[in-house]
Amino acid sequence: MKAKFPFSAIVGQNAMRQALLLAAVEPRLGGVMVFGDRGTGKSTAVRALAALLPPIKVVAGSRYNADPAERERYPDAGELRHAKAVEAPVPFVDLPLGATEDRVLGALDLERALVSGEKRFEPGLLARAHRGFLYIDEVNLLEDHLVDLLLDVAASGENLVEREGLSVRHPARFLLIGSGNPEEGELRPQLLDRFGLSVEVTTPTDMAERVEIVRRCDAFDRDPDAFMARFADAEAATLKALAKAKKALGKVVVPDAMLERATRLCMAVGADGLRGELTLMRAARAAAALEGKKAVGPAHLAAVAPSALRHRLRKNPLDDSGSTARIERALAAL
Amino acid sequence: MKAKFPFSAIVGQNAMRQALLLAAVEPRLGGVMVFGDRGTGKSTAVRALAALLPPIKVVAGSRYNADPAERERYPDAGELRHAKAVEAPVPFVDLPLGATEDRVLGALDLERALVSGEKRFEPGLLARAHRGFLYIDEVNLLEDHLVDLLLDVAASGENLVEREGLSVRHPARFLLIGSGNPEEGELRPQLLDRFGLSVEVTTPTDMAERVEIVRRCDAFDRDPDAFMARFADAEAATLKALAKAKKALGKVVVPDAMLERATRLCMAVGADGLRGELTLMRAARAAAALEGKKAVGPAHLAAVAPSALRHRLRKNPLDDSGSTARIERALAAL
Amino acid sequence: MKAKFPFSAIVGQNAMRQALLLAAVEPRLGGVMVFGDRGTGKSTAVRALAALLPPIKVVAGSRYNADPAERERYPDAGELRHAKAVEAPVPFVDLPLGATEDRVLGALDLERALVSGEKRFEPGLLARAHRGFLYIDEVNLLEDHLVDLLLDVAASGENLVEREGLSVRHPARFLLIGSGNPEEGELRPQLLDRFGLSVEVTTPTDMAERVEIVRRCDAFDRDPDAFMARFADAEAATLKALAKAKKALGKVVVPDAMLERATRLCMAVGADGLRGELTLMRAARAAAALEGKKAVGPAHLAAVAPSALRHRLRKNPLDDSGSTARIERALAAL
Amino acid sequence: MKAKFPFSAIVGQNAMRQALLLAAVEPRLGGVMVFGDRGTGKSTAVRALAALLPPIKVVAGSRYNADPAERERYPDAGELRHAKAVEAPVPFVDLPLGATEDRVLGALDLERALVSGEKRFEPGLLARAHRGFLYIDEVNLLEDHLVDLLLDVAASGENLVEREGLSVRHPARFLLIGSGNPEEGELRPQLLDRFGLSVEVTTPTDMAERVEIVRRCDAFDRDPDAFMARFADAEAATLKALAKAKKALGKVVVPDAMLERATRLCMAVGADGLRGELTLMRAARAAAALEGKKAVGPAHLAAVAPSALRHRLRKNPLDDSGSTARIERALAAL
Amino acid sequence: MKAKFPFSAIVGQNAMRQALLLAAVEPRLGGVMVFGDRGTGKSTAVRALAALLPPIKVVAGSRYNADPAERERYPDAGELRHAKAVEAPVPFVDLPLGATEDRVLGALDLERALVSGEKRFEPGLLARAHRGFLYIDEVNLLEDHLVDLLLDVAASGENLVEREGLSVRHPARFLLIGSGNPEEGELRPQLLDRFGLSVEVTTPTDMAERVEIVRRCDAFDRDPDAFMARFADAEAATLKALAKAKKALGKVVVPDAMLERATRLCMAVGADGLRGELTLMRAARAAAALEGKKAVGPAHLAAVAPSALRHRLRKNPLDDSGSTARIERALAAL
Amino acid sequence: MKAKFPFSAIVGQNAMRQALLLAAVEPRLGGVMVFGDRGTGKSTAVRALAALLPPIKVVAGSRYNADPAERERYPDAGELRHAKAVEAPVPFVDLPLGATEDRVLGALDLERALVSGEKRFEPGLLARAHRGFLYIDEVNLLEDHLVDLLLDVAASGENLVEREGLSVRHPARFLLIGSGNPEEGELRPQLLDRFGLSVEVTTPTDMAERVEIVRRCDAFDRDPDAFMARFADAEAATLKALAKAKKALGKVVVPDAMLERATRLCMAVGADGLRGELTLMRAARAAAALEGKKAVGPAHLAAVAPSALRHRLRKNPLDDSGSTARIERALAAL
Repeated sequence: MKAKFPFSAIVGQNAMRQALLLAAVEPRLGGVMVFGDRGTGKSTAVRALAALLPPIKVVAGSRYNADPAERERYPDAGELRHAKAVEAPVPFVDLPLGATEDRVLGALDLERALVSGEKRFEPGLLARAHRGFLYIDEVNLLEDHLVDLLLDVAASGENLVEREGLSVRHPARFLLIGSGNPEEGELRPQLLDRFGLSVEVTTPTDMAERVEIVRRCDAFDRDPDAFMARFADAEAATLKALAKAKKALGKVVVPDAMLERATRLCMAVGADGLRGELTLMRAARAAAALEGKKAVGPAHLAAVAPSALRHRLRKNPLDDSGSTARIERALAAL
Repeated sequence: MKAKFPFSAIVGQNAMRQALLLAAVEPRLGGVMVFGDRGTGKSTAVRALAALLPPIKVVAGSRYNADPAERERYPDAGELRHAKAVEAPVPFVDLPLGATEDRVLGALDLERALVSGEKRFEPGLLARAHRGFLYIDEVNLLEDHLVDLLLDVAASGENLVEREGLSVRHPARFLLIGSGNPEEGELRPQLLDRFGLSVEVTTPTDMAERVEIVRRCDAFDRDPDAFMARFADAEAATLKALAKAKKALGKVVVPDAMLERATRLCMAVGADGLRGELTLMRAARAAAALEGKKAVGPAHLAAVAPSALRHRLRKNPLDDSGSTARIERALAAL
Repeated sequence: MKAKFPFSAIVGQNAMRQALLLAAVEPRLGGVMVFGDRGTGKSTAVRALAALLPPIKVVAGSRYNADPAERERYPDAGELRHAKAVEAPVPFVDLPLGATEDRVLGALDLERALVSGEKRFEPGLLARAHRGFLYIDEVNLLEDHLVDLLLDVAASGENLVEREGLSVRHPARFLLIGSGNPEEGELRPQLLDRFGLSVEVTTPTDMAERVEIVRRCDAFDRDPDAFMARFADAEAATLKALAKAKKALGKVVVPDAMLERATRLCMAVGADGLRGELTLMRAARAAAALEGKKAVGPAHLAAVAPSALRHRLRKNPLDDSGSTARIERALAAL
Repeated sequence: MKAKFPFSAIVGQNAMRQALLLAAVEPRLGGVMVFGDRGTGKSTAVRALAALLPPIKVVAGSRYNADPAERERYPDAGELRHAKAVEAPVPFVDLPLGATEDRVLGALDLERALVSGEKRFEPGLLARAHRGFLYIDEVNLLEDHLVDLLLDVAASGENLVEREGLSVRHPARFLLIGSGNPEEGELRPQLLDRFGLSVEVTTPTDMAERVEIVRRCDAFDRDPDAFMARFADAEAATLKALAKAKKALGKVVVPDAMLERATRLCMAVGADGLRGELTLMRAARAAAALEGKKAVGPAHLAAVAPSALRHRLRKNPLDDSGSTARIERALAAL
Repeated sequence: MKAKFPFSAIVGQNAMRQALLLAAVEPRLGGVMVFGDRGTGKSTAVRALAALLPPIKVVAGSRYNADPAERERYPDAGELRHAKAVEAPVPFVDLPLGATEDRVLGALDLERALVSGEKRFEPGLLARAHRGFLYIDEVNLLEDHLVDLLLDVAASGENLVEREGLSVRHPARFLLIGSGNPEEGELRPQLLDRFGLSVEVTTPTDMAERVEIVRRCDAFDRDPDAFMARFADAEAATLKALAKAKKALGKVVVPDAMLERATRLCMAVGADGLRGELTLMRAARAAAALEGKKAVGPAHLAAVAPSALRHRLRKNPLDDSGSTARIERALAAL
Repeated sequence: MKAKFPFSAIVGQNAMRQALLLAAVEPRLGGVMVFGDRGTGKSTAVRALAALLPPIKVVAGSRYNADPAERERYPDAGELRHAKAVEAPVPFVDLPLGATEDRVLGALDLERALVSGEKRFEPGLLARAHRGFLYIDEVNLLEDHLVDLLLDVAASGENLVEREGLSVRHPARFLLIGSGNPEEGELRPQLLDRFGLSVEVTTPTDMAERVEIVRRCDAFDRDPDAFMARFADAEAATLKALAKAKKALGKVVVPDAMLERATRLCMAVGADGLRGELTLMRAARAAAALEGKKAVGPAHLAAVAPSALRHRLRKNPLDDSGSTARIERALAAL
């Protein structure tokens, strides 16, 4: 177990941090897409969030991260009936470039079949990411049908493999996080639309901020334990806020006026379909929960609108301001 | 079994709903193609229709959705001779992007052959869709020969696999529904022509309608059972109308004047071949049956003409109005 | 056995019907290529001709459609020595898009070899088409080497497979019929030249004809048996004429003047090579036989010239009239 | 055994017939390339020459066409030690489009190895063509490395396969004949240069000749035996002339003056390398032998120069007359 | 064991030698990219550095270059529990062009599995490079996903293979060195950015230097032992300096002023992200350690800035001076 | 064993003959690249040199051309411990177009493994070429990574195969000779640079020379034994000169002035890197040895400069004279 950089020690990058927290509170938001320059700490932030979360309980020896509370839902329920529950860190899977469908979904363990005649399913990366995070660096370089498949599983929370004479179904609930540099090729709008939130990260331009980042990286590098101790309280506070928000979420109200405001905003910026409104509503509810509020207000909508809508705008050839600017202009006009 | 959004709770999208109902009444129409924006509920509507229909009776354990009333027509008749009939929901198969011919048609269960020396056919997605729905999202991204093959099976109602030393024939009757965004590549006219009906769906532009959709989605999301109870009566009424129309269909008359009107319309809009007339006649008959009428009238033709003909028009470079507009102009001129 | 539309019930499409009948009378003509719009009944007509012909006698259980009169010529002669002769409908094989060479020619039954150690040839589509029809829809989309191979077998009447340690030879005599839409890609002239006849079919423009077609399709659709009974006499008459023509063919004389006329016509229209003259002579002889004539006359040449020559003309950049028009002009000038 | 059209019954096409006879007399010429229109009887002429030649003696059961006079040179010498010699027609192999290297060269009989554990070489088309003809229709569509390989074997008279743990060497002497239409893609000059002779065939433009060809084709078609009887004497005479020329070839003298004349001609037309002179000398010697002459004279050089040099000329952008014309002009200038 | 050219005998190429020494002192720098002309001794210098280093201790027979001090961390710990420690030269692996992922990462030993039923991991090139050097000539011709994978392993120091039913994890710490000619294709900026240092080498233009190089090459070539003896002292001195620097590295201080200076430099030249600052700091610390200094000073920053930043600059279309010039200009301006 | 054309009977082509002799004397030169027209005797000359050399002694039955003096260095040392030494002709391997990496390097004998469970290395073409010649016709058509691999082995004298669970190392010392026509595609400069020498051959333009070549070819063709007898003395003399030069090579001195002259020449013509100087020095030393001289002089440098440098020049767009002309101009200017 290598030490991980603390989430609270991240300097700047507010939009990314907010989106990650919202997605951690409300899994139905469906995934976060992070656009931006290389070397801006995207991967560090995602790993930090995973490391922040408390360990989960799993059935010992399960290749599916089986939850002891529902162990009969996993394909290895039989062989692990009497296994005890143990603690494990929140899973974090980094999807390798060039990963095949077999590797992602799982497949027949062909060697075992050939060598010993036993037919067994070899779980894939989706099983390993269950109850944790699936991070796809440079998602725009992945083949479309794989992205599609990942988004399908992320949306349904279940992986169903029906091939090679196997029929296996196992829970696969994870937070899907993609990153990519728009200069290197784009995702098809169809796929982009299915990510709940998107944020842009850039290299900081403030010198003091940059020096502080390098200083923290160096400090962490040279003595991780001391560095983590320094941020232990901040980490605990963040964790507590997250837990409270998750619990309160179901009771946060979205007044009709806010629903209409969300729709009006979507129509004003010209987003196709209705995923914009739905996401806006859900994200605003999560933002309210994080603040401990009982109802969604205009400020919540405004806070999440850029992340929820930016990637759903049609390119407007007559308006070359960025997506974020267009959303903010529409917000101001409301 | 996850809850499905009720068909009757769909707001707007009349053309799509009509086409789905017509195809459910008259299977010979052959398939429905849905064009349109992302996030407009295409997939939701198709699933809703499937969920609406009453469960079917199947031979327990059959991998072919065998109908107990004709169990000898299925390849697993021998091993399931004494299996009893059970109820199952109407099958709904979502064809995954990148599905191979083997996976669609079925193939030799190679692992079983290698491991245990037994040669058995592994049924494919067509067997699983039998007596239900086969939904192909983004059908325009599928390889031509697969689309061709699916349309062939949909038309003949039977899947015949002759490969790898196997010769298997099994019933495969399903309603084929494709969706696609014309901006992302088109189907060849040869293939498009073989879909019976086509509809266009767009993002609604009426604010009240949009707010209502989001409100219903949220209500369903938060408490599916309460939501479904709210629409139970409407669902029952739709189901009853469908059953009545299916029964009456064989007796609905198409007067010669209507046949000539259909032909005149096809000639006026310039559809290649004669599939236009045939589809127009069949769809109008289904529309009359749904209304409980004994004969087809001009209103029925007019109601179904856009869905039946839109995808059969040659591009006219001198007339840049859309296909639907051209059909409606021709209807008015009759 | 599904009912087939009667050949005599086809409305219009005279050129296609004539070409199919000529090819049925004189198999040495070598194949028919049908160009034309979608939905014009190409496939229906070919199937109708196959359904019209009387059943053939085959060795029961033969995977090669073995003729009981020459059963020793088939690879399964040994195992079927004592099998009795049974009747079977005239074979009709529809070559699937994307068919592989293995599937067409036949191949080693690899599963059987692996599983039981027995080495057996698995006959392909050519064996199944023997003594019947091989229909290739959209032949222009097939790979060149497959078309070449099919034309070779069609010309030699025998399929010889020498691969994978197998050496199998079996009769494969069938009428090869290709269809294609010239707008979707062309066959190489080398391949086109090897089809005996070619016809163009178009959507009928006469309204009464169109209405009648739709009416007949609907009638057949709703009550196939009644419809077939209505055309039973016409079918019997066609069948009798065919049988008589086949018998008379060997005695029909081609006078030298007609031979010269055929050559003059080919030179006038500028067909490469001499397949034009040969086909013209054979087709005219078949036409005379169908009419019950003892010798070929100028009318027979004129009747078959468009089908026999159209696909053998060089493109003439200075003459943009169609091939048929050029042939008819040359005929008139003779 | 199907009847073959007699070589002597071929009308016209003098250059092609001469080249085939020269190559039959002097195998060191190395191969004949035939360019030309479709349907001009290229394949018929080559088959006719093969059919004309007297049967060869082979070891019964040999898969290598083993010559009983040297049976120890073949890989199946062991198993066929006591097999007797039988007569077989001169082999004629038609290389199928899309043939693989395995199929051409031979390969391990993998099935036999897997099924019975015996490792045996499965001879390829080269073994089957040994002591006969290898005909490649549309050689320009074959992959370069296969053409290269075929030319290598044709030049060395031996096929050496060293792959998959096998090391097999067997005689493979055959006359390689390629045909192709230059409009459909060209052979690389490197490969073309390695064919000994090349000829161009065109559709005859003389009407009487064309009528005569069609008449002969029809006569042969309708009664092959009668037709062959009619040309039996001419066939016998050609066969006798060939045999005499082969015997005399070794003694025909090439005077120095003729050698210089050949070189001067090559320099005048600008052929790269020295294969031109060598071929010219050998072809002229064969032509003299066919005429029963003891020495090569200017007329022999002139007669063979177009076939020997045409395909070795560099394209001259300032001289758009054909290759043959340039050679004839150079001959005249000598 | 072939003799290697001594590192100290390399003439010129200061930048390359410095970068290699820095990377040897501070492995966290992550890799060195060498751009330049062919035939300039890139490969010779890298091999020379490897040969210079003292032998390492390995577990005898280990296929993972297992360190006896931590032998339980290697997959072959079980079978080699009692193997003794032996000395081995520092590993040097030259990644072959066209190497597959299997070969690099390791894979199931399929032959062993098939033949003897034993399932064993066959370590790849990464295992062989462990504790030494991995050299990739023409890294720009390697597939992106392989480069990505190599950089990932180089950064984490561990190779984790999860495929084909295997799950193997073994230490893989090596110095990654890539070379390439920018004229033959570029690495994607994303990948380039992950190399710590980069240098450019060119053909020397000083005549005396060139003559000396050839003279030394010839001398080494003709009598390697004498040549190596001549440079033995210089080699020992370099080795000692390296060892001392490695030991001191942890205690070298980077004053805040230097950190700010590094950031200011990065901002001035416009490097994306923050890897530039981090690398600059680490490389300067290693440079100070090599000089035996206790703290980083401006001279250290200046010395390493070109190597640390050159490959992280955005192309500036208005400034066509090279990357190095731009960095030096910015250094001067500070 | 077929007769080979004697090396001494080659007419003209001095540069090619000189380069082959130099490479035979000094194997460290590394390979010869022959550019030029088809049909100019490139392959004949290389084969002639191989045939000229005296037979080598090999361990009987060795698949690696094992040298009896070092038999323990070969993988088959065990099984052939008691095999006696026999004489064999100098190996000559002609690399076939389309050869795979397996075939070149050697690979697991998969059939043997599958059939009998024995795991054995099947040596490739490199083993067969050991101690002889490896000829690659049209090397520019070979894949880059294969050329790279061949040049690596040629440079190191050893073939190391590490794949498929095998680890085999065997000596592979051979003279690599490539030929190619620059009009058909070029080698990458990176690869070209690694060939030691290069020559250009053209069709001779002198008539007497051409006639003499054809006369000799014909004489050899008709009576190889007589022809070889005629050149036996010349062959013996060449062989003796070669043997003497090889022995003397180690003692030939390269004065400093000559080294500087070589460098000056390389700088004048602008060759990248330092391989030019090294090759020039080595080739001049071999030339001096062939002449029986004790030291290299300016004439030796001048004689080998075109072959050693021609392929290392950068294209100069302002100087369209050929590479050879530029080198000769630079030589004159020294």
